[in-house]
Amino acid sequence: MSRYQSIKEQAYEANMQLPKLGLVLFTFGNVSVVDRSAGVFAIKPSGVPYEQLKPDQIVVVDFDAKIVEGSNRPSSDTKTHAVLYRHWEHIGGIVHTHSTYATAWAQAQRDIPIFGTTHADHLTTDVPCAPPMSDEMIRGDYEHETGFQIINCFRERKLSCEEVEMVLVGNHAPFTWGRDAAKAVYNAAVLEEVARMALLTEQINPQAPRLKETLIKKHFERKHGPGAYYGQGC
Amino acid sequence: MSRYQSIKEQAYEANMQLPKLGLVLFTFGNVSVVDRSAGVFAIKPSGVPYEQLKPDQIVVVDFDAKIVEGSNRPSSDTKTHAVLYRHWEHIGGIVHTHSTYATAWAQAQRDIPIFGTTHADHLTTDVPCAPPMSDEMIRGDYEHETGFQIINCFRERKLSCEEVEMVLVGNHAPFTWGRDAAKAVYNAAVLEEVARMALLTEQINPQAPRLKETLIKKHFERKHGPGAYYGQGC
Amino acid sequence: MSRYQSIKEQAYEANMQLPKLGLVLFTFGNVSVVDRSAGVFAIKPSGVPYEQLKPDQIVVVDFDAKIVEGSNRPSSDTKTHAVLYRHWEHIGGIVHTHSTYATAWAQAQRDIPIFGTTHADHLTTDVPCAPPMSDEMIRGDYEHETGFQIINCFRERKLSCEEVEMVLVGNHAPFTWGRDAAKAVYNAAVLEEVARMALLTEQINPQAPRLKETLIKKHFERKHGPGAYYGQGC
Amino acid sequence: MSRYQSIKEQAYEANMQLPKLGLVLFTFGNVSVVDRSAGVFAIKPSGVPYEQLKPDQIVVVDFDAKIVEGSNRPSSDTKTHAVLYRHWEHIGGIVHTHSTYATAWAQAQRDIPIFGTTHADHLTTDVPCAPPMSDEMIRGDYEHETGFQIINCFRERKLSCEEVEMVLVGNHAPFTWGRDAAKAVYNAAVLEEVARMALLTEQINPQAPRLKETLIKKHFERKHGPGAYYGQGC
Repeated sequence: MSRYQSIKEQAYEANMQLPKLGLVLFTFGNVSVVDRSAGVFAIKPSGVPYEQLKPDQIVVVDFDAKIVEGSNRPSSDTKTHAVLYRHWEHIGGIVHTHSTYATAWAQAQRDIPIFGTTHADHLTTDVPCAPPMSDEMIRGDYEHETGFQIINCFRERKLSCEEVEMVLVGNHAPFTWGRDAAKAVYNAAVLEEVARMALLTEQINPQAPRLKETLIKKHFERKHGPGAYYGQGC
Repeated sequence: MSRYQSIKEQAYEANMQLPKLGLVLFTFGNVSVVDRSAGVFAIKPSGVPYEQLKPDQIVVVDFDAKIVEGSNRPSSDTKTHAVLYRHWEHIGGIVHTHSTYATAWAQAQRDIPIFGTTHADHLTTDVPCAPPMSDEMIRGDYEHETGFQIINCFRERKLSCEEVEMVLVGNHAPFTWGRDAAKAVYNAAVLEEVARMALLTEQINPQAPRLKETLIKKHFERKHGPGAYYGQGC
Repeated sequence: MSRYQSIKEQAYEANMQLPKLGLVLFTFGNVSVVDRSAGVFAIKPSGVPYEQLKPDQIVVVDFDAKIVEGSNRPSSDTKTHAVLYRHWEHIGGIVHTHSTYATAWAQAQRDIPIFGTTHADHLTTDVPCAPPMSDEMIRGDYEHETGFQIINCFRERKLSCEEVEMVLVGNHAPFTWGRDAAKAVYNAAVLEEVARMALLTEQINPQAPRLKETLIKKHFERKHGPGAYYGQGC
Repeated sequence: MSRYQSIKEQAYEANMQLPKLGLVLFTFGNVSVVDRSAGVFAIKPSGVPYEQLKPDQIVVVDFDAKIVEGSNRPSSDTKTHAVLYRHWEHIGGIVHTHSTYATAWAQAQRDIPIFGTTHADHLTTDVPCAPPMSDEMIRGDYEHETGFQIINCFRERKLSCEEVEMVLVGNHAPFTWGRDAAKAVYNAAVLEEVARMALLTEQINPQAPRLKETLIKKHFERKHGPGAYYGQGC
């Protein structure tokens, strides 16, 4: 019995949600779950189809992306996860997908504008799109640098990773996170839907205005802070 | 055995139709059923996923949105439902969703033009889009005011809630209703399909004309009034 | 045992294909099957949901749309079917749907251009869109006139109902037909896919050219005429 | 027991993946598997619906498309497969579909631009669209010439069939291939997704730039060559 059994099972369950939610084709995605006290995280093995994935195949690595337990090679995006866990101390799970609409916005290199309350219920800013990396970063330790591209984007824009739990990496695809893997998966599905609605909104009305500030604030406060009244509390 | 057992079960059944019809992601929707004689309505609890929902969790509230029966917090949209039931005396059920295409039209802040008979079989006007609320209304009792935003839109446009059983709330999402919850759910699905077809119509022909008046009238009369001949009577 | 048992069962089976193929929402469609020797056809009853439909509910009517057998009211589109059977002597089944993309083209009042071999494998012309009816026709016997609108469109354009087994009725929706109901249902699904591909083609390249004549001819001859070599013969 | 049992079963299994992956409507597609040592390939029979297909119905033909085993007529596209097998000595399986988005790009007669890493993980060039055939080629041995149209396109553009495992045939539809039939089917699904994302990318940002060269190179090398580190090795 592995001492990492709990995060391996959580990672397995969360990974299996991605095909159910229609967020991945073949192996185009991965979820990880962190164990802060042990300084490790559990992540999907690279290139294994979801229908064949077993909890035992989940790989445990440390924050340098070195394998701690598991006989498979971890996801090729492991270093990106490692950088995010190292810098953002309160996140518990990370999801990477190539979900269709979110990826299209990333390829278009545009932030997703906040057009309505579906978006505002989850974050009060546009969904940020980090610019494509410099040639130097790409030629370096690519997946490692992808993590920094995200961190730098949040720093420059003064965004909080606890308020904004999703990002697009320009030319690439989305990453989402949360207090645990289930929340990170939830955010991945929300992002895909918000991305789809935003494109449709612009197609219906190319001059569609962003949501006005009073409405953004109102919807956010329904879920956050001392006056929150959405959900059963938790 | 609750004296509200019947409306609780109807509300449960109607809520469970939303994911089957592809109208909700996660918890983004709710259905209510009114009992006019008791002056209460049954509504989905807030933030409970559909796959975990049980009839016992349905909350019964009065027209001031005060809980009459149930240990869960009711949907965060409860006050909007309450306002509609109070003002529109003949409706029996209300549905709120964030279905993709209808929400995109709401975000685009446009009425859905009546382009064909699929639309005209259900209503003979464009689907109205109520404007976003004033800042004053938003800062006030938000969900309560959302109800008035809908009521005011119908008053100003001289629309009947029995002829037009659907509305978009600008920047937000659709509400539909009907003589009972099943009809309200039916209308939510019809609205989503009409919203999708209307966008496609404009993409195929940006100059597509609205349906001409003779055809609107003809299709509506097939289902309504003394000469109706569609369906098995009921 | 009804003497019309065979066409009633064929009509039932063909109607049940429509929801399986994703061509109908709720009751928005119907299929009929003709018995030429008896001068009648079997058609879906009006307003009955597919999940509740039973073979016994299928209604048998003559070419004046008068009920010959059955206790339900026949589809509200019955007179349109009757006109087509009366004028086109070799068709054996008719389908009417409000399938999303085909209906959008009908609402846009445009023929569907022949852009590729998927289309050319089935018909060598654009899919015709009959114009909306004159006010006089609409105020008259509406569904009866819908049939004539289709017949007239084919006459004016010199189209053969055996070569072109589908039509859009402007502002309304598609009708398809074939030697039997199964072929008519097949054509309804082909039309929906061709309609979808044609919109996408124009979105990818607004100057996309129609298929050139040599290619149209080649693909059609693969399935028709003395040199046909597609399929197992039949 | 046929001496071709193995390729017949592989062809059957691969063909049955097409409807599961949503890549075919009715009979609009086919997969073949080659046996190089025997100089034959196994291919779907023409016009047989997938739900009725049995391994025994798979037809075995030689590289002149002459039947070696089987009582059914082979796919009408058999000669195209034969030409590709004859010219490209290292491919083991071929897929032809009319999948919706890839076919729309073929009808639009445009290469699919490389916009992101989803594309770059699989090929480092735009997806080539071979031009429609000359009238002379169409009037000749059509399916045979379709093969040459593909071969010529790759020659003129100096593309390698081992690096680029997919092509669009202008006005027609896609072909994909790979070291075996499973890889060819995988490529058909990847192509459809890449085609869909590319259209969405252009809709979100009509000026979306192609992926820059450093990023193309980086992603390709993750899967290819001596420094490859994606997947479990194989």
